[in-house]
Amino acid sequence: MKVVPRRLKGFQDYTPELMALRLMIINVAREVARKAGFSEIGTPALEYAEVLLGVGGETDKQVFRFLDGGERDVALRYDLTIPFARYAAENSGKILFPFKRLQIGDVWRAEKPQKGRYREFCQCDIDIIGVDSRNADVEILLSAHEMLSNILDRPFTISCNNRKILSFFIHKFLGISGGEQEEQALIILDKIEKIGPENIINDLFLKLNVAHNRSEKLLTTLNEVKGQDPSVITDLFDEPAIKSHWLRFLETIKIVQELTNNHGKVVIDLSIARGLAYYTGIVYETTVDDIVGFGSICSGGRYDNLAERFINQPMPGVGISIGVDRLAALLFEHSDKKEMGVPKVFIAIAEEGITDDAFKLAKKLRDFGVTTDIALKEQKLGAQFKYADKRGFAYVLPLGSHELLQGLFTLKNMKTGEEHRGLDFNELTNLILS
Amino acid sequence: MKVVPRRLKGFQDYTPELMALRLMIINVAREVARKAGFSEIGTPALEYAEVLLGVGGETDKQVFRFLDGGERDVALRYDLTIPFARYAAENSGKILFPFKRLQIGDVWRAEKPQKGRYREFCQCDIDIIGVDSRNADVEILLSAHEMLSNILDRPFTISCNNRKILSFFIHKFLGISGGEQEEQALIILDKIEKIGPENIINDLFLKLNVAHNRSEKLLTTLNEVKGQDPSVITDLFDEPAIKSHWLRFLETIKIVQELTNNHGKVVIDLSIARGLAYYTGIVYETTVDDIVGFGSICSGGRYDNLAERFINQPMPGVGISIGVDRLAALLFEHSDKKEMGVPKVFIAIAEEGITDDAFKLAKKLRDFGVTTDIALKEQKLGAQFKYADKRGFAYVLPLGSHELLQGLFTLKNMKTGEEHRGLDFNELTNLILS
Repeated sequence: MKVVPRRLKGFQDYTPELMALRLMIINVAREVARKAGFSEIGTPALEYAEVLLGVGGETDKQVFRFLDGGERDVALRYDLTIPFARYAAENSGKILFPFKRLQIGDVWRAEKPQKGRYREFCQCDIDIIGVDSRNADVEILLSAHEMLSNILDRPFTISCNNRKILSFFIHKFLGISGGEQEEQALIILDKIEKIGPENIINDLFLKLNVAHNRSEKLLTTLNEVKGQDPSVITDLFDEPAIKSHWLRFLETIKIVQELTNNHGKVVIDLSIARGLAYYTGIVYETTVDDIVGFGSICSGGRYDNLAERFINQPMPGVGISIGVDRLAALLFEHSDKKEMGVPKVFIAIAEEGITDDAFKLAKKLRDFGVTTDIALKEQKLGAQFKYADKRGFAYVLPLGSHELLQGLFTLKNMKTGEEHRGLDFNELTNLILS
Repeated sequence: MKVVPRRLKGFQDYTPELMALRLMIINVAREVARKAGFSEIGTPALEYAEVLLGVGGETDKQVFRFLDGGERDVALRYDLTIPFARYAAENSGKILFPFKRLQIGDVWRAEKPQKGRYREFCQCDIDIIGVDSRNADVEILLSAHEMLSNILDRPFTISCNNRKILSFFIHKFLGISGGEQEEQALIILDKIEKIGPENIINDLFLKLNVAHNRSEKLLTTLNEVKGQDPSVITDLFDEPAIKSHWLRFLETIKIVQELTNNHGKVVIDLSIARGLAYYTGIVYETTVDDIVGFGSICSGGRYDNLAERFINQPMPGVGISIGVDRLAALLFEHSDKKEMGVPKVFIAIAEEGITDDAFKLAKKLRDFGVTTDIALKEQKLGAQFKYADKRGFAYVLPLGSHELLQGLFTLKNMKTGEEHRGLDFNELTNLILS
């Protein structure tokens, strides 16, 4: 009986093409983070369930959780933020704060699988923990912007809100303040892009008993300043309770707008809610302008109380997470595919008994940085050429005792069909690298 | 009530120092694999349990296995080879064979945690699937050797055996042939480095009822040719049943020895067993010469029947796996630590109201590739210098309106204490990059 070779629902393999995009995104992020002084860390995929769960929001239900062989209640991480709070708390005596973290890794959520949404996906997170300052909010935005600018060829928009401002309005218009009710309101509001204002208003009525006109007023107010210049909208929010938060928020956006002038906009959008309950200040969300309905590719926010579930010490944090696989899927689908890099030379073996020399030649070419492969299957020269062509090699180098005796090689350009004969090793590498 | 910030037994966090070593290893492996024409893929961490289990060997017991929310019997992968066989079988119509794979990812085994052994660890695998040839065996050895040579500063040894030869001797001396008994014998023999010949002989008696003198003879024979030159030991194995396997094995070692002449030896060691049951031909194991008892850092072998559990199509394969975390732990412990890269410039903020300009300057320096950080916490200049010094920055650049007005900067060398004053931006970058 054969085992059916199949994957679990919602889990994907990464083909070489998809993997190349994934790695391109990761490499760009690493380089930007390095230049900005972030330190890369890693944490385990599995944690005690109690470490991950109970932070609130919708994610608890989606966690892969089980008893391990030692009857421990364990779970696969569903994001990289909670494990980081655990890391920072556990190592608080060793870490120098503020600590700037980079972490890249897979997370798991048993979401309903949809196009572009998987149950396993890679996140790339940058965070600054140990300080609550406008400059930390700015630094996260600038770094994320720099990463996305280098990854995407198309325009994108980072939309920002502030949880304190949103909470204020939820209280003012819906009469809801803190606790589970506010959490529920945030989860409903977070769906605005997906289900539209009508359904939001209905949901708020059905689940939280909010009168329609109240919800309408809230949505109108939240939309009033969408995308506006932060320097002209101060009046609207001259409410003492949130004035300082509002001013800091406006300053943050202003600075970032001044420092970013290419194809990525950073804008105010007070309707941005984010589903996670642990945000306490600025929140971020990113969409690609000309692709509607793809959801956010880079999101995050400030979480000033998260580490307090582990430690009696204030550890305010702010961070953002690039959805590596969503971004890779987007690039893959919309054929912004960067060239995967054509493999250069395939050494075809023209006769038996020369493979040792073929490997020697391959090594010499590889030492020059040239992607070189070698026939590993004993077959006729024609079949070897065909295989090399299908794999997309730029050149085939047929090797026999004749070439070895003379030290002169033939190189066939697989695109043009042209054959270059009688090349010594220098001429060979010059041609390949030209 | 606080949640205790703790990790699961056998799981580790990767600090920035450990992560830097991990990434160095991964980057070297990627570059070598790229040049040799391997394609990088990825597969999910979670698979159907039936895909992973029942291949035999000891690992089944160590698998993290559970029912997911949809009552599916699932398991975390414990190596990257079985998932690759599943991948190759599932995509057999789309893949061009022979297919050269690179895969880097975490695997999970509920082993008894020991020094240097974790329940989660990263493997870096290269494989060639779809061909059973000596050249494929050679290519895997050459690539692994190249990777390890570039990673390690100290001498290492790749020891090779062939399962067919070992099986032949197990049959000849112990009277055991195939099936579970042979599997058990292999598992026992695999422990030779750990528990010594005495215990092996005892175990073979206790578990398989093999007379002591038979086991002794086996061990003596297996040790006879250890490390010998492959060209002088042909006589001993002039047994018709294994002659062709033996010749191919000797040729493989000979070619690889000819092509590798630096600090990594490739040798014959017929006592190498490898615990996994699925090997059918050459097997590899690697130790660092001057560090005893660390176990193998790079192992693998030929597995010609593995994919047949999924598909009615021969898919012979050969591969090797670098234990990234074991290697990182080794480098970390034995202070071969490569320099982590000193961060360059920390911009200290001398007065309020100039942070916008500080961010502008940081961006300019980062665009030059310079690792630049900026004070994110509002504190006195002295405290900012102290923080930068603790983090190991090479220079601190204190910034105030005076510097901004003049466009001239001061740079303090944190190692020498020297202050460079009145630098324009060009002089600044020249000094930093010098």
